[in-house]
Amino acid sequence: MSKNKAEEKKRSKQSGLDEGGSRNSGEKEERFHAWADAIRSGNRRDLARAITLVESTRPDDLEYAQQLLELLLPYTGGADRIGVSGVPGVGKSTFIDTLGKELIADGRKVAVLTVDPSSPLSGGSILGDKTRMVEFSCMEEAFIRPSPAGKTLGGVARKTREAMLMCESAGYDVVIIETVGTGQAEWQVSSMVDLFAVLMMSNAGDSLQGIKRGILEMADIILVNKADGNLKEAAELTANEYRNAMKLMDNGDCATAVHTCSALDPESVRLCWRHFTGALSQRKNDSRFENRRYAQLLQWIRSPAEDSLQQILQNSTSRSVLEDLADQVHNKKITPLHAGLVYRRNIVSEFADLDRHSKVPN
Amino acid sequence: MSKNKAEEKKRSKQSGLDEGGSRNSGEKEERFHAWADAIRSGNRRDLARAITLVESTRPDDLEYAQQLLELLLPYTGGADRIGVSGVPGVGKSTFIDTLGKELIADGRKVAVLTVDPSSPLSGGSILGDKTRMVEFSCMEEAFIRPSPAGKTLGGVARKTREAMLMCESAGYDVVIIETVGTGQAEWQVSSMVDLFAVLMMSNAGDSLQGIKRGILEMADIILVNKADGNLKEAAELTANEYRNAMKLMDNGDCATAVHTCSALDPESVRLCWRHFTGALSQRKNDSRFENRRYAQLLQWIRSPAEDSLQQILQNSTSRSVLEDLADQVHNKKITPLHAGLVYRRNIVSEFADLDRHSKVPN
Repeated sequence: MSKNKAEEKKRSKQSGLDEGGSRNSGEKEERFHAWADAIRSGNRRDLARAITLVESTRPDDLEYAQQLLELLLPYTGGADRIGVSGVPGVGKSTFIDTLGKELIADGRKVAVLTVDPSSPLSGGSILGDKTRMVEFSCMEEAFIRPSPAGKTLGGVARKTREAMLMCESAGYDVVIIETVGTGQAEWQVSSMVDLFAVLMMSNAGDSLQGIKRGILEMADIILVNKADGNLKEAAELTANEYRNAMKLMDNGDCATAVHTCSALDPESVRLCWRHFTGALSQRKNDSRFENRRYAQLLQWIRSPAEDSLQQILQNSTSRSVLEDLADQVHNKKITPLHAGLVYRRNIVSEFADLDRHSKVPN
Repeated sequence: MSKNKAEEKKRSKQSGLDEGGSRNSGEKEERFHAWADAIRSGNRRDLARAITLVESTRPDDLEYAQQLLELLLPYTGGADRIGVSGVPGVGKSTFIDTLGKELIADGRKVAVLTVDPSSPLSGGSILGDKTRMVEFSCMEEAFIRPSPAGKTLGGVARKTREAMLMCESAGYDVVIIETVGTGQAEWQVSSMVDLFAVLMMSNAGDSLQGIKRGILEMADIILVNKADGNLKEAAELTANEYRNAMKLMDNGDCATAVHTCSALDPESVRLCWRHFTGALSQRKNDSRFENRRYAQLLQWIRSPAEDSLQQILQNSTSRSVLEDLADQVHNKKITPLHAGLVYRRNIVSEFADLDRHSKVPN
């Protein structure tokens, strides 16, 4: 058996659909229903397998994942979707560990998904996390899943959103999406959560550095972490600086809230959670919560088209066509518009090709 | 004669190509060569007519404009391309009036083009400008042209860039592109000039408001205007505030320079010009000037594809398709990815249709 075939068989086994050769569609459908039921009843192994199916790059698996998701869809949408971002070392894992344990103590089920564009291979960042979330990760009511593998940020985002829906159908009523605060993935994460929190360090010097400005503009809540011991006062000062900076940034309907936090202290993390739920219930009272979810849904539907286009615009064929055309304009042989129309025709034909083969950015 | 036909005939007369009915292509080519020669020899009326042709929405005229531009192309690229932005009332017209006169006194020829998305109809903003640039606008070595009419910002940008090239071929060695500092058009303008200057007012209060933050991030040079009389000291203070703010904004290779300026004082405006040319000659010495022009050329070639896509994504058909799909996902009938693939197919087909008819965003 060739290596490729062996790998394919291994993947098929993971998804559990092609075992025992061909089977009729009725049997398959039955199997899907059983799988969906197992997920809904809270079987973590079945949930994990479903997310593996979502992450698969095989065209068949893509189909299957959608079929399974369709069965789960009626049971989605009920969780509080929370984004947690911040540069490495700011204390995200500690914060999530403490928060997770507190929420579970309150009788909730908590799923943690990570998006880390710097570790495109599955299992990269979570190893570090699992060692820092030892207690939490061993709890029955917790589900932790590392950043999905993917070649494009759009592909990773789709997989994370589908994993989030599956977690919701499995009864997790808080889904935390963790990301590393370096800029690339934050927009994607902020566009899939109800509340986007950014952890910052208290800093004696220029506290606006270290994290990308754009990330602060996306933040619903900024938490200045490590407000404990000697650093407590510095954290308060830093929080004030951020409050002033946030006033200069026009964020639309409401100013970003800034609080201090000590991720090591359960009381402090509980208070942060009250800030989160306070903001969420305010938004649920007016129409902001619903509007945001609807806008996110529109964005989600637009994303295969947008991601595919990005992929085409950045691939090597388009680049070399563009450079050839630029040479011709540079040598004053054709006008820029003429070049632009040739370029557009090229993009149209690549876009149509990709769509004809129904490829999804991965 | 119907109103439409009459208008069409009027437009044809403006471009001067369809007079006297059909003519063979040899004659037409000769006519184009004569027109190009007239423009190159500095005939302002012929230049103005050529820009009118560029601005026409008739498909024939689009063709003709490209043919004419092709003849002029070898004589383009030699001007200093300067963007001047700032909110209404900051003194842009006064600044350009003073600068224009000084440059002409130095033996240069100066063209001023405006981009004003708030006045989509030709002749909107320039009336105000011409009254404020009375002396300058009457000079033989000056050429002033209002914001071109257009339905999309991309269309306006293309026309402005083509007008800029035509001005260069006519021997204008400084092309100033003026825009109103309210956000929409600034990115377009900054992507067609060698140096983007933003005029600001000195302000006792919160001086970072009034202009969009993004515009300051595009600025190569910030000029705090009205640094005269009682306001001189306030302007210096404001300039210092901007210097500090610019340090917080990561602009890439070099920090934005901040100077004070009195648009009424020729000496002060001359000094500003020296700042401009100083920055430009620095960039011409290393590869930054050339790299920027090349990046702009690439952007220009990409823009028909990007503008067409924007137009499609925002048109009413796409919107209603998107909303229908969102309803279906909301009612848990299909998965978001499924909806996204249907949406993508719709965009692909609209994009191919538009390209097949070779429509250019106008």
